[in-house]
Amino acid sequence: MQDLTEYCEDLASRARTAARRLATSSGAHKDRWLEETARAVERRAGEILEANADDLGRAQEAGLAAAQVDRLRLTPERLRAAADGLRQVALLPDPVGRVLDSSVRPNGLLVLKVGVPLGVILFIYESRPNVTLDAAALCVKSGNAIILRGGKEALHSNTALHQVVQESLQDANLPPEAVQLVTTADRAAVGQLLRLSGQIDLVIPRGGESLIRRVVQEARMPVLKHYKGNCHVYVDRAADLDMAERILVNAKCQRPAVCNAAESLLVHQDVAAAFLPRAAAALRERSVELRGCEATCRLVPGAVPATEDDYAAEYLDLILSVKVVPGIEEAIEHIERYGSRHTEAIVTNDWTAARRFTAAVDSSAVLVNASTRFNDGYEFGLGAEIGISTDKFHARGPCGLLELTTYKYVVHGDGQVRGEKD
Amino acid sequence: MQDLTEYCEDLASRARTAARRLATSSGAHKDRWLEETARAVERRAGEILEANADDLGRAQEAGLAAAQVDRLRLTPERLRAAADGLRQVALLPDPVGRVLDSSVRPNGLLVLKVGVPLGVILFIYESRPNVTLDAAALCVKSGNAIILRGGKEALHSNTALHQVVQESLQDANLPPEAVQLVTTADRAAVGQLLRLSGQIDLVIPRGGESLIRRVVQEARMPVLKHYKGNCHVYVDRAADLDMAERILVNAKCQRPAVCNAAESLLVHQDVAAAFLPRAAAALRERSVELRGCEATCRLVPGAVPATEDDYAAEYLDLILSVKVVPGIEEAIEHIERYGSRHTEAIVTNDWTAARRFTAAVDSSAVLVNASTRFNDGYEFGLGAEIGISTDKFHARGPCGLLELTTYKYVVHGDGQVRGEKD
Repeated sequence: MQDLTEYCEDLASRARTAARRLATSSGAHKDRWLEETARAVERRAGEILEANADDLGRAQEAGLAAAQVDRLRLTPERLRAAADGLRQVALLPDPVGRVLDSSVRPNGLLVLKVGVPLGVILFIYESRPNVTLDAAALCVKSGNAIILRGGKEALHSNTALHQVVQESLQDANLPPEAVQLVTTADRAAVGQLLRLSGQIDLVIPRGGESLIRRVVQEARMPVLKHYKGNCHVYVDRAADLDMAERILVNAKCQRPAVCNAAESLLVHQDVAAAFLPRAAAALRERSVELRGCEATCRLVPGAVPATEDDYAAEYLDLILSVKVVPGIEEAIEHIERYGSRHTEAIVTNDWTAARRFTAAVDSSAVLVNASTRFNDGYEFGLGAEIGISTDKFHARGPCGLLELTTYKYVVHGDGQVRGEKD
Repeated sequence: MQDLTEYCEDLASRARTAARRLATSSGAHKDRWLEETARAVERRAGEILEANADDLGRAQEAGLAAAQVDRLRLTPERLRAAADGLRQVALLPDPVGRVLDSSVRPNGLLVLKVGVPLGVILFIYESRPNVTLDAAALCVKSGNAIILRGGKEALHSNTALHQVVQESLQDANLPPEAVQLVTTADRAAVGQLLRLSGQIDLVIPRGGESLIRRVVQEARMPVLKHYKGNCHVYVDRAADLDMAERILVNAKCQRPAVCNAAESLLVHQDVAAAFLPRAAAALRERSVELRGCEATCRLVPGAVPATEDDYAAEYLDLILSVKVVPGIEEAIEHIERYGSRHTEAIVTNDWTAARRFTAAVDSSAVLVNASTRFNDGYEFGLGAEIGISTDKFHARGPCGLLELTTYKYVVHGDGQVRGEKD
């Protein structure tokens, strides 16, 4: 245990030192590192895939489910896609040092609000090894050092990728210790790291709800949380029903296993009879199971009664809960009660209803007449993202390079002092 | 204990309900409340001062120090100043609903990043009762409900002020439970409240370092921290020494008891002999005690040797630690090692030195050729502030109305869905 404490403290303190250097490194050096890493990943694909084969062999021996083994698997295509991802991050503007806001004060002081890195980020994730490269790319480009703690099933793959990353850092004249990998499989290491609030500025857990809850419970520093997405589509009385059907089908079916897919449909009672049977038919064609309130079950033969749990569920599957509501206020209240503050959409042609819904619904993204699937860094024009925050503090929704920075004030003067009576 | 748990949960849950209503209340209602409260504080000064006299009596009986009793004291002038403060907050623009950023996507979606309240804020503070009004004003104007937990010495004063505030909320057609006061003196109430991460979005402790550390240790929600200010003035080789003296004297002496006053002076060795004797004379005139390194003690007869503790100290008094450094890098390292990331200033006429210092020093404000005393909400043009954050996440430096909000994305479409291959 003493050894583990020392190991974690040493790791964090070396990351902190690297972060200081990285904070003032130029964008050109960071981009050169991204391009060099992309080339090295392609050039050294053989040894990376070999390490991955080692992990895959152990996973199969250990009897991991096929889906888990697939998540763990690297292929030449997946490595090429990861390398392309690195090159795309290189093309994004450097978020460090940009002026976010400014004012000239009456006494002549120029007050600049300037983007700066957060410092050291602890990133805890599950078995997909390509996430190692994505996370390192976003953190280093935003000037942060990162401590990577991947799943133990992926340790060989992550070690191989980490070696490539560190060598490229050296080649690009950046501190190699800006990207650290926790190599012990001891689960207590996470607990130790979560106490080091003096060295680590932010934790990002990426995985299931139980992982996130454990991290929140133990962390002595801020946590960027990405809880579940129980997203709603509300079809208002004034909806264009063709549009509503298109949006609903897209939100539910286009990629049902992701966090911004719709899990619940709310329908205004005045259009329920006109909308639900046709929507149900379109969803059935795509094998979606419906679980509804009494009114829904009357209008849609074959729908099964929904429970409280259904309304709170993130299915990540071809299932949809449905409720007929008397009006927009009841839709807003239902979302407040059961939703996860991730993404909600209203379909309406009524100006007042759209204004009310977007003002009252407290989610990271609220859409009018568009699919919930758009709540995504690329779709919002923010570039690659490290996750979609369901937090309010500090970043909400898609978290890309900008959300991995904070700011400081830089003030330019020519000798100003405060008056004696201020 | 059961009763206390219920009491705290009930308080928080009522604040949460009020926060929902407040989030969509108009700026006109919030400003009417501020003006009505200002009038009521003046009109009902008699009963407020009577409650305060009660607190003062008990404080004297309990043998509180004279300085503490003075902090507790309300006077007709202090109440008038508090009322004026409320009117000034009313004049600030409403931070809720403003568009922070926007983009039109190639598919026609309009993506708006919109300011929204944080929700429910727990504000823990020590004995100054006029802070009750300041904090309520900033939180309600930014659309947040607030739970006030003042010092037990100020309970009668705070209860009287809280009653005025709640009645004005009712008069302005805002939810009276948007401002709650913890009326039990039981210290365990704070511990109970700090667990309610589902109901309370942010804690702001305002007081000594031990209070803040306790809150950070126990809180299950983000904490806006305002640790000490160990602020530095670095006089570079290329400084205008007249300007350096003016800035140093102002930073140290203009109001020595505040967090943005200078506590430490760093001087480049090339100008130490020219600068230190004259600076010391100017500071001695204002009764400042100097504690310096060996070189300082050689140049300034009467300076006493500084210890490690001196370099880390926030004196809040007429004492200054002094160190002669071989160059700007050593100044930056000294600040990294001993500083509190609050406010630092460089005095220089060298462009490269100014660029390097502002880039490398990681403090909430870094000033070139201006006094540290300017790191303040009013001086930066942000209006009234609830504190100066030494945190990186989410707000740094002066925290006013904008820093008490977060954002959500509001997306306007006309039927957009994601492509099948996205």
